[in-house]
Amino acid sequence: MDNSLGKFFTITSFGESHGDCIGIVIDGCPAGLAISVDDIQREADKRKSGARALTTARREDDKIEFFSGIFNGHTTGAPICLIIWNKNIDSSEYDRMKDLPRPGHADFTAMMKYGRFNDFRGGGRFSGRITAGFVMAGAVARKLLSLVGIEVLAHTVEIGGIAARPKSLDEIRKNTGQNEVNCADPVAAGKMARAIEQAGQEGDSLGGIIEGIALNVPVGLGEPVFDTLEGDLAKAFFAIPAVKGVEFGSGFGAARKKGSQNNDPFAIKAGKIITLTNNAGGIMGGISNGMPIVARVAVKPTPSIAKSQPTVNIKTMKIASLAVRGRHDACIVPRAVAVVESILAITLCDFALRAGLLPRVIK
Amino acid sequence: MDNSLGKFFTITSFGESHGDCIGIVIDGCPAGLAISVDDIQREADKRKSGARALTTARREDDKIEFFSGIFNGHTTGAPICLIIWNKNIDSSEYDRMKDLPRPGHADFTAMMKYGRFNDFRGGGRFSGRITAGFVMAGAVARKLLSLVGIEVLAHTVEIGGIAARPKSLDEIRKNTGQNEVNCADPVAAGKMARAIEQAGQEGDSLGGIIEGIALNVPVGLGEPVFDTLEGDLAKAFFAIPAVKGVEFGSGFGAARKKGSQNNDPFAIKAGKIITLTNNAGGIMGGISNGMPIVARVAVKPTPSIAKSQPTVNIKTMKIASLAVRGRHDACIVPRAVAVVESILAITLCDFALRAGLLPRVIK
Amino acid sequence: MDNSLGKFFTITSFGESHGDCIGIVIDGCPAGLAISVDDIQREADKRKSGARALTTARREDDKIEFFSGIFNGHTTGAPICLIIWNKNIDSSEYDRMKDLPRPGHADFTAMMKYGRFNDFRGGGRFSGRITAGFVMAGAVARKLLSLVGIEVLAHTVEIGGIAARPKSLDEIRKNTGQNEVNCADPVAAGKMARAIEQAGQEGDSLGGIIEGIALNVPVGLGEPVFDTLEGDLAKAFFAIPAVKGVEFGSGFGAARKKGSQNNDPFAIKAGKIITLTNNAGGIMGGISNGMPIVARVAVKPTPSIAKSQPTVNIKTMKIASLAVRGRHDACIVPRAVAVVESILAITLCDFALRAGLLPRVIK
Amino acid sequence: MDNSLGKFFTITSFGESHGDCIGIVIDGCPAGLAISVDDIQREADKRKSGARALTTARREDDKIEFFSGIFNGHTTGAPICLIIWNKNIDSSEYDRMKDLPRPGHADFTAMMKYGRFNDFRGGGRFSGRITAGFVMAGAVARKLLSLVGIEVLAHTVEIGGIAARPKSLDEIRKNTGQNEVNCADPVAAGKMARAIEQAGQEGDSLGGIIEGIALNVPVGLGEPVFDTLEGDLAKAFFAIPAVKGVEFGSGFGAARKKGSQNNDPFAIKAGKIITLTNNAGGIMGGISNGMPIVARVAVKPTPSIAKSQPTVNIKTMKIASLAVRGRHDACIVPRAVAVVESILAITLCDFALRAGLLPRVIK
Repeated sequence: MDNSLGKFFTITSFGESHGDCIGIVIDGCPAGLAISVDDIQREADKRKSGARALTTARREDDKIEFFSGIFNGHTTGAPICLIIWNKNIDSSEYDRMKDLPRPGHADFTAMMKYGRFNDFRGGGRFSGRITAGFVMAGAVARKLLSLVGIEVLAHTVEIGGIAARPKSLDEIRKNTGQNEVNCADPVAAGKMARAIEQAGQEGDSLGGIIEGIALNVPVGLGEPVFDTLEGDLAKAFFAIPAVKGVEFGSGFGAARKKGSQNNDPFAIKAGKIITLTNNAGGIMGGISNGMPIVARVAVKPTPSIAKSQPTVNIKTMKIASLAVRGRHDACIVPRAVAVVESILAITLCDFALRAGLLPRVIK
Repeated sequence: MDNSLGKFFTITSFGESHGDCIGIVIDGCPAGLAISVDDIQREADKRKSGARALTTARREDDKIEFFSGIFNGHTTGAPICLIIWNKNIDSSEYDRMKDLPRPGHADFTAMMKYGRFNDFRGGGRFSGRITAGFVMAGAVARKLLSLVGIEVLAHTVEIGGIAARPKSLDEIRKNTGQNEVNCADPVAAGKMARAIEQAGQEGDSLGGIIEGIALNVPVGLGEPVFDTLEGDLAKAFFAIPAVKGVEFGSGFGAARKKGSQNNDPFAIKAGKIITLTNNAGGIMGGISNGMPIVARVAVKPTPSIAKSQPTVNIKTMKIASLAVRGRHDACIVPRAVAVVESILAITLCDFALRAGLLPRVIK
Repeated sequence: MDNSLGKFFTITSFGESHGDCIGIVIDGCPAGLAISVDDIQREADKRKSGARALTTARREDDKIEFFSGIFNGHTTGAPICLIIWNKNIDSSEYDRMKDLPRPGHADFTAMMKYGRFNDFRGGGRFSGRITAGFVMAGAVARKLLSLVGIEVLAHTVEIGGIAARPKSLDEIRKNTGQNEVNCADPVAAGKMARAIEQAGQEGDSLGGIIEGIALNVPVGLGEPVFDTLEGDLAKAFFAIPAVKGVEFGSGFGAARKKGSQNNDPFAIKAGKIITLTNNAGGIMGGISNGMPIVARVAVKPTPSIAKSQPTVNIKTMKIASLAVRGRHDACIVPRAVAVVESILAITLCDFALRAGLLPRVIK
Repeated sequence: MDNSLGKFFTITSFGESHGDCIGIVIDGCPAGLAISVDDIQREADKRKSGARALTTARREDDKIEFFSGIFNGHTTGAPICLIIWNKNIDSSEYDRMKDLPRPGHADFTAMMKYGRFNDFRGGGRFSGRITAGFVMAGAVARKLLSLVGIEVLAHTVEIGGIAARPKSLDEIRKNTGQNEVNCADPVAAGKMARAIEQAGQEGDSLGGIIEGIALNVPVGLGEPVFDTLEGDLAKAFFAIPAVKGVEFGSGFGAARKKGSQNNDPFAIKAGKIITLTNNAGGIMGGISNGMPIVARVAVKPTPSIAKSQPTVNIKTMKIASLAVRGRHDACIVPRAVAVVESILAITLCDFALRAGLLPRVIK
């Protein structure tokens, strides 16, 4: 079940970049959640925004359709199938490249693993477009989490080495959607946008770092020793193409701190035990500790670039050079923000159902 | 099945730090692997070495026993149960702390999740001692992988901010076991050891970074979109207590590179397609690409420190201060090297069986 | 993942009887299988035939569509989504019955489990129509199995107490599709058909027994102690609505035999070890023994009957009586034959992939 | 994970008939269950009783030991490992038979699947002794279920063609443990015992039918379409060696009834909706309906008989004849009663946890 994720709130992904559609089946969603196509559409549109303005990326309406699991405006407890159709497809460029794996891209491993049967058009199953399914499922997950007060956010914290200054939760909530890079720091956002534009003009691309935050997660989600909150979140984040690193709280920075610096002192606030700092990123021993969950994912620069790069023709086994043409984002970080948010919501939903925090039928 | 990992080579962990034993059940090991207690013991002893010299850590013989799955010196295809007994136990210090969660430790979340039933002695299920089971399973996994030429290594690359200089594979193989911090750079190793000693004397602790490497992994292991090599490895690494970050190849560094810098150019070597650099860490699109798999995990400093820290008595709900006494490593990085190596081997074994690279019965 | 079945060849079912469509996602199908919509359509049409002639059952074109996983006429290794659209829907009768659970039907448990959110139209997820998805997946599975010479058959062996006489494999192959009850014994078939007709005229219904057979299954499929061939087949058969019993080989009859009668003596034929009888139904210790796999499933009579029956109005909590109107088969056994065949094929496919009998990429 | 069963209350079986021990790991047991070794021992002893008097079967003390998961007399939420040691072992007879598969036994398939690595001693993993682990886990499950008022029973309803007369629940509770065949009908019990004795004297064996009953199961357990109560129970029952058939309620008898006879009319009793008959065996649409769950399993006659039978020497590939010597029950039905009861309890526990009927921590 390589294409399924989650034990209790299980998503199954299908569809290819240039196939008929991108789809997701959600199994395990409680009955009784009021949800409409518009609720999903709003979230899915986030994934399209942002970098949109900066790039010549493929434009799709991406109108969402429900195929099952909804009756009278509510979930029924049955599997929910959600679809967006692929239109506006031009696979000609991929025909040209089908024996020329793009450096840095999954082309090569896909060719080797699936051989001549690999659906290479638009990157097939390895396209970032697959994450449209994650975002549809994420919209359902976020709605479920909101029932128990859990809020999930994500924002760009770094692009091309340009780091956003730390911002308050309110600023993150308010500013993130206001600029084309989904960054809470408007000054950095401007610089990031210009850097992306310039990289694009140079036929190059940029990477960055996205931070996901979950608020009001109660103490106790996560199941050691293997089904930890960190472990399951990390596994899910790595399903986003281009993610090469995941950290929680102080993360790699923790490796350079002393215990006395990195340990979060306990205190009492409003009758509840809290920690004064959050180096743990809200997770201790794989279990949520009631503080905000903070995860950061490293996104590598888009491998498809216009600059010429050395590759090998897998048929002729001769060295070749490849300059990728067509509609590729010079930086996918802004669009991936909605995906990080979705993956965070989906995984928390899974743990919330597992822990009985969410009911099987919503009254 | 929170305590099970892997779909094809499945390990199930049981036992507590101060219970009768630490155990692991391996399900899915092919029949016909020649293996002895000594094979396992050798690997398990690695976990004990290293920091041992530097600390007053608990000393156990940790003699391994097979309980099942072995007949006439070979695996039978049946579940293999491996055990080490817990001896030399002193739980008195934990009685003192049972209402005082150690800052930075899983004590708090364990207390909250399992209530008064939590086995707090020695950290119970949240103790690093649980990883002894991972190492026993890792020894079996490494032996299996060696049948198809896959070699798995791990070494300390950073402790307390002291970074090892890059070393060749030969140096890593040769030097790592030669010093008490399991570092391939002897000069850095000396500095790391002194830093650990000093931190210990200050009642403090240090974290660090461990690198795991797998060589000769053929192209094609990993199952997108969710059961990716990176995702499943990351999930498994986060089962090691104190791990707060995982990255592959250029990892978080990729976020600061341009596509033209981070993409690994393809080339031909000895008739095979290789990449000239390995920023991908041997994994593209979640699938191994034939290059060395390179993962790095960030280990936070040991939370149990002798320095006094603020905490809260969960019974009285009053602020307290806690100085942890007893046998705690000032840095667990050196001992965790064998665990990282084991987790890497276990997960690769799972994928190798899944891909049919390893047979169900070894001839 | 209640709506997913299988570990290696995994099917995920979605859709409702009166929703937009019935769908199935197949994950784990090897790349390189040549398959067309027509291949699937042919199998799916079997499910519609038979009782068709005898009943006023809902008539659907049930034209199958591929949504993903097929490229250039071959499977790609990606999830295959298959759909049939629901048309010709009239839910008015179900509106009338929505507070009146049909005796013998899942209406009651569905109402109680999912409350007012249950999609009751046409039985929703509990309709026999859901099995159309199983048959689509079964068609793919049968094509895969045929690559390794495995043949899967099913036929009606009893309806309304009328038992077919034992028939040879050739007769089963030849006769089963030739009559409206899918029975290999033409004489019994005629009686069965008349019994169904009469039951229908009386406003009543009949049950029966279906036998599934798999030929040329090599020795060694099945994974004790829990993932046995019998266990996984039985679990899968019970997903067919109305199945209330499953047995293998001599089955319940074995309970009345002596060991000396029930044990199958070993012998040698064409250099291979066979058994002279097949009371084991081709399965010993949960593992295939190379003989034909023989399973029988008991199908209860259709609960939806025109005769008046006592029920309870779940809203008013008053006793009521219900005579079910509309298009219900007086016996679903003939239509379920294709479903039994499909389930058998799907489960064997799962074990064949698990055992490495089928490759991940078909050359 | 062939040796694991259950998603929420997961048991992992290890150990062989003539290995060191038989063990079971229970993962997912709620914290806070008061349990002692004696609680388990009492249930485990049931498996040994009964036929004991009738046979020369292996005698073991089977003293149970806890290895993990228990602290201060309560479960902790951590995996519980339970063990019985194997003593009183004599493998000489198995050495004699190691190339001579016993007709009707798993010897042949085990030899073929695992080759020369198969642990054939005492039947290895295919021995009925493995079920001692199921009974240990069943004892924990029954204790959990008792917290929510669910009672689980099993009794022999047929041996060697001798059927017990139907008995009331009170008689089943009272009589079952009173005779050596675990039958609620004392008259039939006497006949069964004599039939077993005679079969044993003739060097032959008998099979039979066991009925499992679960009382006070609330409406709503079971997860269609695949994780049905019937499907998961059937899968679990088939893990008991010698089981060849499983049916629920009227089972195979339903195939011969009309809808008007087999449908259970609804009625109201004490303000709750009940059915007047229980042909459904307490399960409709795969979901419990509040009535007693009734399952019957067919147990084939013990394959190991003293009568001479034709077999094949798998090394020489020559026809041979085999008369099995040693301590084999002439009928395992009486001992399997405790196993059926255990499997029923374990599976219901899984569904009870899944449905949130049992908490994760028992207050």
